[in-house]
Parts: sequence; structure tokens; C-alpha cells
Amino acid sequence: MSTPTLFFVDDLAEGVPATPTRFHQADPAAGQINVMDLSVTRGDGIFETAGFQHGHPMALEAHLRRFANSARILDLPAPRLEVWRDAILAAVAAHEPEPMLSAKFIMTRGVEGTGLPIGWVYVFGGDEHAVERRDGIAVVTLDRGYRHDVAKTSPWLLQGAKTLSYAVNKSVLREAARRGADDVIFISSDGFVLEGPTSSVIVRHGDTFATPATDQGILAGTTQASAFAWLEQQGHTTEYREVRPEELVDADGLWLLSSTRCAAPVRELDGRQMPIDRETTDAMNAALLTRTA
Amino acid sequence: MSTPTLFFVDDLAEGVPATPTRFHQADPAAGQINVMDLSVTRGDGIFETAGFQHGHPMALEAHLRRFANSARILDLPAPRLEVWRDAILAAVAAHEPEPMLSAKFIMTRGVEGTGLPIGWVYVFGGDEHAVERRDGIAVVTLDRGYRHDVAKTSPWLLQGAKTLSYAVNKSVLREAARRGADDVIFISSDGFVLEGPTSSVIVRHGDTFATPATDQGILAGTTQASAFAWLEQQGHTTEYREVRPEELVDADGLWLLSSTRCAAPVRELDGRQMPIDRETTDAMNAALLTRTA
Repeated sequence: MSTPTLFFVDDLAEGVPATPTRFHQADPAAGQINVMDLSVTRGDGIFETAGFQHGHPMALEAHLRRFANSARILDLPAPRLEVWRDAILAAVAAHEPEPMLSAKFIMTRGVEGTGLPIGWVYVFGGDEHAVERRDGIAVVTLDRGYRHDVAKTSPWLLQGAKTLSYAVNKSVLREAARRGADDVIFISSDGFVLEGPTSSVIVRHGDTFATPATDQGILAGTTQASAFAWLEQQGHTTEYREVRPEELVDADGLWLLSSTRCAAPVRELDGRQMPIDRETTDAMNAALLTRTA
Repeated sequence: MSTPTLFFVDDLAEGVPATPTRFHQADPAAGQINVMDLSVTRGDGIFETAGFQHGHPMALEAHLRRFANSARILDLPAPRLEVWRDAILAAVAAHEPEPMLSAKFIMTRGVEGTGLPIGWVYVFGGDEHAVERRDGIAVVTLDRGYRHDVAKTSPWLLQGAKTLSYAVNKSVLREAARRGADDVIFISSDGFVLEGPTSSVIVRHGDTFATPATDQGILAGTTQASAFAWLEQQGHTTEYREVRPEELVDADGLWLLSSTRCAAPVRELDGRQMPIDRETTDAMNAALLTRTA
């Protein structure tokens, strides 16, 4: 495994005091974060993970926009995206070249009581997920507990923000493993398909590809958006709408989309075999793996 | 403000490799936590905050039991409570004496990929909350988004565990502030009173004191349990049961209970004035501030 690179972002957000440096490199193996930082004690911060294919950013601007949107939902100061962009590119450039690199960037509310957010970029190589893209994944549906309209009725629940409070997103993967599966599709308490814990859902019926509309307390999928742009170029119909779980069962194709894994076809749903749409899967992944926007 | 003390717990859990030391002191001002620790990146860990009044532990055993229960819900290895207890007492002893100290203890799942949880105890002094105990607090009710039975139907949502994924618990305090209030009482999506973001609810009608039953996806309140024991000694009736929001409105007394603030009377609920039960409040706090169990 290659050595990750770590860059702290100093001039990171509006209203945060000016710093002599815009960003600086640090040792990823050392302890860096104070035990009273609110990321540690409260999961109080936001993150994104963007892929770099042979050094080229994949939909980085979409990740940066979503990062700013998460900050807004959490009442964090607006991140200076031009500084973050440069820090991310510098951290990738400082990493030894690999076919796929991931840049995880995080902004926290900082040490409790200081009011000073902190942020960093962590770049790492590794798993290319080629096997999952080819052979597919086994998925179970699990209750997310929230109604599909909760982001509108109760914005303080932070649905639609990519926060550091992801213990549930990890817990559901352990529940999936107990059921012999690899991943999860969340269902709202009132019976709508939402998203995976770290992915978006696309379902195909005939020539139409649908994904759950993002006004249902879910993230706007950066990879799903790239996939829809490509599908439209191919002449397919795409839809953002409410999706019911029964529509997954009789689908002609079902995928979980995420930044570095790209489109993982679902080969098993709640124990039932699903058809893998081989041709679309391979062509979509070829497009996603070379996407820039 | 006094200097906090920090002790890392080395021999912290069942199945974790033996360490030469049981625990050791560290510098709380230094960066200590790796950026890829799952507490930082996923809020994936558990915590407790126990009070020490003039050096005496307040319900420490109840906090330790709840810590072990949270570990079980999160599939973390069972913490060695005897080591944690000694580390907590050592960290308190190493702190300069104050009327009230708080010991926050945390166990995380450790750096991603290592499978090695880490843990520490952080002891700090400060606010004694005397004003809130005397003058009361303004509270708003907010939707928690979950049904009251979600811990039973969907245990993977981790309701009932005290996790580090507390971004929502912080967010609701900002929403309360926007509404001119100090604190929050969560209501389930199906209309049951649950708890505060960092407290338990007790409501009085006549001679009967009720708190929401803990099978509703809420924490077993350590301070609430101490208060109930005292109320029973005084000849009052106590009840663990389902509580409806309308029962708060016509209450003869309403309190939020937590470890160091103890019993904060609610003087205003969703903008309506509430009676402060002065005599009970003062006597209950006198008992809570000297509790050992």
C-alpha cells in the first residue's frame, strides 16, 4: 500500500481569521487532531470523497459544490472552494501516481469553544473495485427510520448533508454482512427508496433510468449525475422521482453509484437474484472512469 | 479556566491485544488523534460524561454500565470497565480540585482498517450550571424524525446508544437558539415525548413523576434514575411510560436532567410560560449534587 498524503487547509472558510499559508502538508501517520475537536466528540463536520483516475479529477466541481451545500445545512462558515480545490490538487500531486486515488476532504467545527473550524485533505490509493463493477454486489434493503419528506419538515435532522456523523452508515453495513450481503439500500419509513449509505441508486425499466429525487433527504449523487448525463447522451430517458421498493424487484437493471467504485450492478436484492445489465454496466463504467465533470 | 487532564486507556477492551500499561497520561493540548480514526471520519464510537462533585463520583457505575451497553449496540468489543474506572479516577485525581469536574470518556473503532479501538478519558472543570438550576431554561419541542418504536424495529439505527455521531444533537441546539430557546425536547414522528439532545425528561402531575420509558430508542438517564430513587424516598410515585406532548403543557413541573447540570426546570415550553416547582427543584438538586449512585 502506498503512503497517503495529508494537507491541512488553513485559509479554509469565510469569516475565519486569515492565515499566513493557504494550506500546508503534514504527517498523516502522526496524531493531528485534538481530542476535543468536534469531529471527534460529536461527528460535527462535513466531508467529501472525490476520485482521481490516472491523476485526473472526476467530478471534483460537483463534490466541491456539495461540500459547500453541506456546510450551509450545518451552519458552518462557507468554505473557500478555490483554496480547497488547490489543496486537493496539491495533495494528489504529492502522492505517488496510481491508477485510482481518492481525496477525502473534511471540515470540522473545530475544538469545542473556539469557534474555529479546521479542515484537511487526505489522499490515498488502493482498491479499484474492478471486481464489484464486473460481478456485482449483494444488497439488502433496510429501514432508514425517517419519512421521505423529513428534510423539508425537520431540517435540523441534517438529512441531505454529508456529515461526519456516519455511525449509522457503518452500522447498516454490519447488518448487511450479518445477512450475507455487501451493501444496503435505505427505504424511508413511509416506503420510498432513498439511497445507499455511501452511494446513489439507479433503477432501469426498459429504456428509462430513474433515481430517487433529492428532495427526499438524500444526497445529490455526483457519480449518479455523471451517469445520467452519459445515459442521456446515449438516447435514454432519465427521471428524478419517487421510487417504490417494488420497482426495484422487477427492474431490468439496478446499480449503486459512488465516486471511486462507480456503477456497481446489484446481482442480488434481499436474497433474490437480479439480472446484471452487462452491456450498460460496462459502457457506463467506461464513461464514469474517464469522466471529468 | 483550569487545565484539563487526558489519560489514554491502553488495555481498553476484550479481545484487544494486551498492552504494557493499563492507561497513561498525555498532553491534552497536543494533536493526538489520527485523521483516519473512525471517530473523526465517521463519528463511529461511544462516549459518556460523568460528573465529580468535590472529587466524588456521581453515578459513575451507571455511566460505566451504559458505556458497555452502547458498545454492545455498536458491535464494539466489550470495554474492560475495571480499567476504565481506574483511568477515570486517575484522571480526576490528576486534575486540580474544583467543585465540579466532568470526565468525558470515549472509545472509538480506531483507525480505519486496523480493527484496533482506542479510548481515552478527558477531565475538565468549569460551568456549574447554578443559574439554570435556579432560573430554569426555555425549551422547544422538535421532531426527532423516528417513530418511538424504531429501536425495536430497526436496531441498526443505533437509537439507545450514546454514539459520537451527535451532529443532530448539536444542530437542534442551533435551531433552539434561532427560536430564542436554550434546549430541546425531542418528539417522535408518531407523537411521543423522547428525551433532550443531552438530557432526560421528567414531568410532574400532582404527586406523580413520569419519564419516557427507555424502550423508545432513548438513553437510560443516569441522572434521571438518581432523581427517581430520591423521589421515591420522598414518598412520590414514579413512572416509566409513554408520555404525550400535551402532558408537558399542563404539567405541574417539568425538568431536563443531565450529569453535571442536574435538574434544570423548564420555565418556558414552545414560548409558553411554565410553573417552576421551586421546592422540588431545589431539594432534588441538593440530592443530585451529592449523589454517589
